[in-house]
Amino acid sequence: MMERDITKELDPLFNPTSVAHIGATNNRNKWGFSTITSLIHTFKGPIYPVNNHEEQIQGLKVYKKVTDIPGPVDLAVFTIPSERVAAAMEECVQKGVKSAVIISAGFAEIGPEGKKLQDEVYAIAKRGNIRFIGPNCMGYWSASSSLAAFMMPLLVKDGPLAFVSQGGNVGAAVVVAGYERGVGFRHYVSCGCAADVQIEDYIEYFGEDPEVKVIMTYIEGLNNGARFTEVVSRVTQKKPVIVLKPGKTEAAAKAIKSHSGAMAGSDRVYDAAFKKMGVVRVDGPEEMLDVAIGFLTQPLPNGRNVAIITPGGSYGVLCADACEEGGLNVVKLPDKTIQELDKIFPPRWSRGNPVDPAGDRNFIAYLIAPAWLLDIKTVDALIFMGFGGFSLFGNLLLQQRTEQEKRMKPEESAQRDSALKAIIPIIEDIKSDNVYKVETAIKTLINMLGWVLGIQDKMEIEDLASMVIAAKRSGKIDDVLVNNLLDLANGTASLANSGRTRMDIINDMIGRLMRALSGQWIESYGKPVITTTFTEEQVKLIGNHYDYTSGKRAARVLLKLTEYNDYLEKTRAK
Amino acid sequence: MMERDITKELDPLFNPTSVAHIGATNNRNKWGFSTITSLIHTFKGPIYPVNNHEEQIQGLKVYKKVTDIPGPVDLAVFTIPSERVAAAMEECVQKGVKSAVIISAGFAEIGPEGKKLQDEVYAIAKRGNIRFIGPNCMGYWSASSSLAAFMMPLLVKDGPLAFVSQGGNVGAAVVVAGYERGVGFRHYVSCGCAADVQIEDYIEYFGEDPEVKVIMTYIEGLNNGARFTEVVSRVTQKKPVIVLKPGKTEAAAKAIKSHSGAMAGSDRVYDAAFKKMGVVRVDGPEEMLDVAIGFLTQPLPNGRNVAIITPGGSYGVLCADACEEGGLNVVKLPDKTIQELDKIFPPRWSRGNPVDPAGDRNFIAYLIAPAWLLDIKTVDALIFMGFGGFSLFGNLLLQQRTEQEKRMKPEESAQRDSALKAIIPIIEDIKSDNVYKVETAIKTLINMLGWVLGIQDKMEIEDLASMVIAAKRSGKIDDVLVNNLLDLANGTASLANSGRTRMDIINDMIGRLMRALSGQWIESYGKPVITTTFTEEQVKLIGNHYDYTSGKRAARVLLKLTEYNDYLEKTRAK
Repeated sequence: MMERDITKELDPLFNPTSVAHIGATNNRNKWGFSTITSLIHTFKGPIYPVNNHEEQIQGLKVYKKVTDIPGPVDLAVFTIPSERVAAAMEECVQKGVKSAVIISAGFAEIGPEGKKLQDEVYAIAKRGNIRFIGPNCMGYWSASSSLAAFMMPLLVKDGPLAFVSQGGNVGAAVVVAGYERGVGFRHYVSCGCAADVQIEDYIEYFGEDPEVKVIMTYIEGLNNGARFTEVVSRVTQKKPVIVLKPGKTEAAAKAIKSHSGAMAGSDRVYDAAFKKMGVVRVDGPEEMLDVAIGFLTQPLPNGRNVAIITPGGSYGVLCADACEEGGLNVVKLPDKTIQELDKIFPPRWSRGNPVDPAGDRNFIAYLIAPAWLLDIKTVDALIFMGFGGFSLFGNLLLQQRTEQEKRMKPEESAQRDSALKAIIPIIEDIKSDNVYKVETAIKTLINMLGWVLGIQDKMEIEDLASMVIAAKRSGKIDDVLVNNLLDLANGTASLANSGRTRMDIINDMIGRLMRALSGQWIESYGKPVITTTFTEEQVKLIGNHYDYTSGKRAARVLLKLTEYNDYLEKTRAK
Repeated sequence: MMERDITKELDPLFNPTSVAHIGATNNRNKWGFSTITSLIHTFKGPIYPVNNHEEQIQGLKVYKKVTDIPGPVDLAVFTIPSERVAAAMEECVQKGVKSAVIISAGFAEIGPEGKKLQDEVYAIAKRGNIRFIGPNCMGYWSASSSLAAFMMPLLVKDGPLAFVSQGGNVGAAVVVAGYERGVGFRHYVSCGCAADVQIEDYIEYFGEDPEVKVIMTYIEGLNNGARFTEVVSRVTQKKPVIVLKPGKTEAAAKAIKSHSGAMAGSDRVYDAAFKKMGVVRVDGPEEMLDVAIGFLTQPLPNGRNVAIITPGGSYGVLCADACEEGGLNVVKLPDKTIQELDKIFPPRWSRGNPVDPAGDRNFIAYLIAPAWLLDIKTVDALIFMGFGGFSLFGNLLLQQRTEQEKRMKPEESAQRDSALKAIIPIIEDIKSDNVYKVETAIKTLINMLGWVLGIQDKMEIEDLASMVIAAKRSGKIDDVLVNNLLDLANGTASLANSGRTRMDIINDMIGRLMRALSGQWIESYGKPVITTTFTEEQVKLIGNHYDYTSGKRAARVLLKLTEYNDYLEKTRAK
């Protein structure tokens, strides 16, 4: 079998060096206006607006025809009415244009007449060796050429995801939501009717791109199921492919027909086929991003046994329900572990999984327990349900501190400030990696953290410090924790000088602490540690750390990671 | 049968005029510290800290025993260890305390020993006629006495919801999320082990309170299923009761046993019983708030037929799928309506339900269509999938406007400012309600809106204005729209003077427009109009308007409203 070189085929689309826009306009009521705006704001190479009636658009010289353009044209963007696309494509062939994106609607999706137009455009492009996206799409983004050829400006940034969507609006919403969550896209394509390049072609291309870590696709229907199956089965061996495919109901199938012109097909047939290909199927746009971020931030779990630790019993109940409903196993803890936890938690703790300290206020114990749970051989993953119960203290500490500070003598206040500033040289000590100094530095940092969190009990702080230092000595801790502590220290030092409120500082410190600890646990045990918050507010991805807003969402992500791992193990064993 | 007067029974709990806190402390590592802080920050009546070792707590005089307190005590709050609660309760009886909340843990939830302690406390309180919340709870909130007797400060405000939760953490998370969404609670109770007052007692009390519009409850297990059924069946005839009940899986049942000490019971039995009582069962804390807000903002639908209008085809597909999966009917539109919509939309529109203008840029048509859809007899409700496609123009307009303004002559700039300020007298004209003036005023306002939204086509604006004026003349429009337009105008005027960015103003205006229009549609047709956004960001409830973040969430809310209406019709017909 001769392998197609998909990278060579689609490179002109994803890495153009010059762009012509056929249908650029100054008329704000037309898509041609918003499209040229999107191009101008992103693309750094030459842009040539093509329009019969205008002389200048946003400072650029306008050409009447593509063939009038003096320099070479790698990509042509179409926003003219469908009936004029064929003639303009003919000119692109004459000009030697290498690739195109047809945003214009009014093709296969409107019925036989539109399909005829589409076939005509396809034949012309094929003859000229022009590969094209669309028609009837919202355009695309390629980080490798800093090109947003969208029909309207969208917030998007470079990153490890790649996404092809048969729905422009779902696609745009996911891309923008990703931006807001702090995760970026190497490529995003709204593929529309996919007359030429097919969904599976994009997936194959993304599969070859080493910058792409996770592939996502929204599908309404496929043109060539057999080729899709063949391609995707290969790609899932290399990286996860997440699929959102609606059409379970009659109403959706009808809506799909009028939207993309696709046949939704039997959902059961699709579902079985997806399972066979190792595709990760999700329920909606939100879950699509949740799972993508899960793949980016977590190792794959080796099995279905999950431990849960929660600062609140009822949250543990909801999370356990979601885990088992999805087919995960909320594993029984060994007696030995229960006895160990008996030593650090009050007698009222749950004495089982989910681990619930039942309102214990000793947050050190709560932070020691996860490592003990991950250390259990039969535990494949941990859901750590955040700091909710503890972070609520923030409010309280704030009030109390403010009162204390009002009564603080100037020399006390100066002492506090210099204590915070003293962190800066400690960072240098850690960098120098002298064992004695590192230990002192870690101890000092944790003391500082204790101060910020308002822990009075000196012994507790020393427990945490000793734990970290012991781990460091045994070689179990490496640069990850040290780096995260550096970050914590940097943060504390800069926060101290920033004039922000104490509440801000506390919340920020808790975020940094969570990130440092969960990063360390993942690194030490090679198991997923999925964290949650207690509020509905969407959290930003920071470094490799992401908090989900509920145990249910965390459970769903873990389940999808497990299913993908199962698939890989099964197919690789063959 | 003798009716109990639940209002009289529980009033001392919900409307105390003085509070003793047994276990108040200055030790920040104890719950007694955070609890007294919560009391001090909310309650306006006398607060008496009770503690053996301290003299003063946060400026308040401390008493060694409840019986040492000079004035009367309506409520006693307990945060002392469980083994000391019985003795202190005995003193409360001596003192003539009327009600109590026992936050302390270590009772029935830890096993037979704890249960014995609990029974003892119950017997003492019973003898003294003291009704109490808890033990093993997080406390409670009563807006009618501005009392937050929580074990930690929580964000909560007064409002039309009432909530009793068997999980303190789930409860707190819902209350705080409600606060962040802009909706408040008349009462919120973390009921813990519910040794005395039962979940159904709270529900009965909330049912009698005219300030409470929607009742919510999180249940792990019931002590008296028969009484719960009897009470709740009565209450659901008056107002909706939303229930979150986990425990479908073995893991959750076990977690419940160790958390609240309750027996989860068979989920199928519970589900059938809930249906019989007319309870609205939800999937999670987020959906609980979604549905509660739905009941607050929407009329009940008369049936299951839903129309969907979307600015993006793929969003319509996902929403249609969610509607039909839940048992709603994405209704076929009459031919007459299709022909009418043919006149305002481009030929490529979906010509069916969901109504998708397929990238039409004429936003006036998009805003006229909903009224036509609601006017169809067979349509029971509308899902209006927001302004996503249009609001994205905001970015674009912003850029373009800024460019224009840079080139604006000083006199043009002054003209624009005076145009915005001219809105203020128009408001007065509308208030005077002279028909001629009202028409001019509405026209001017809509012109202004057109200016802000960047619509160039004068005809389109006049179409919208004529539509509004015609509706006003026919009496179809009443004060709702006028008031909303006033708000729109007020907003525009104050925004113009606020120095905020144009992007902010556009987003704000779009929000106000959505609110004005959907309010008017609901008022005119008496049918639910559920709106959505295109981003993941949680939106605030403003007045009677709330945007859900996806079609799926909107569909779920509509389904729950429909189920409740079905239940009422069925039971009232009997």
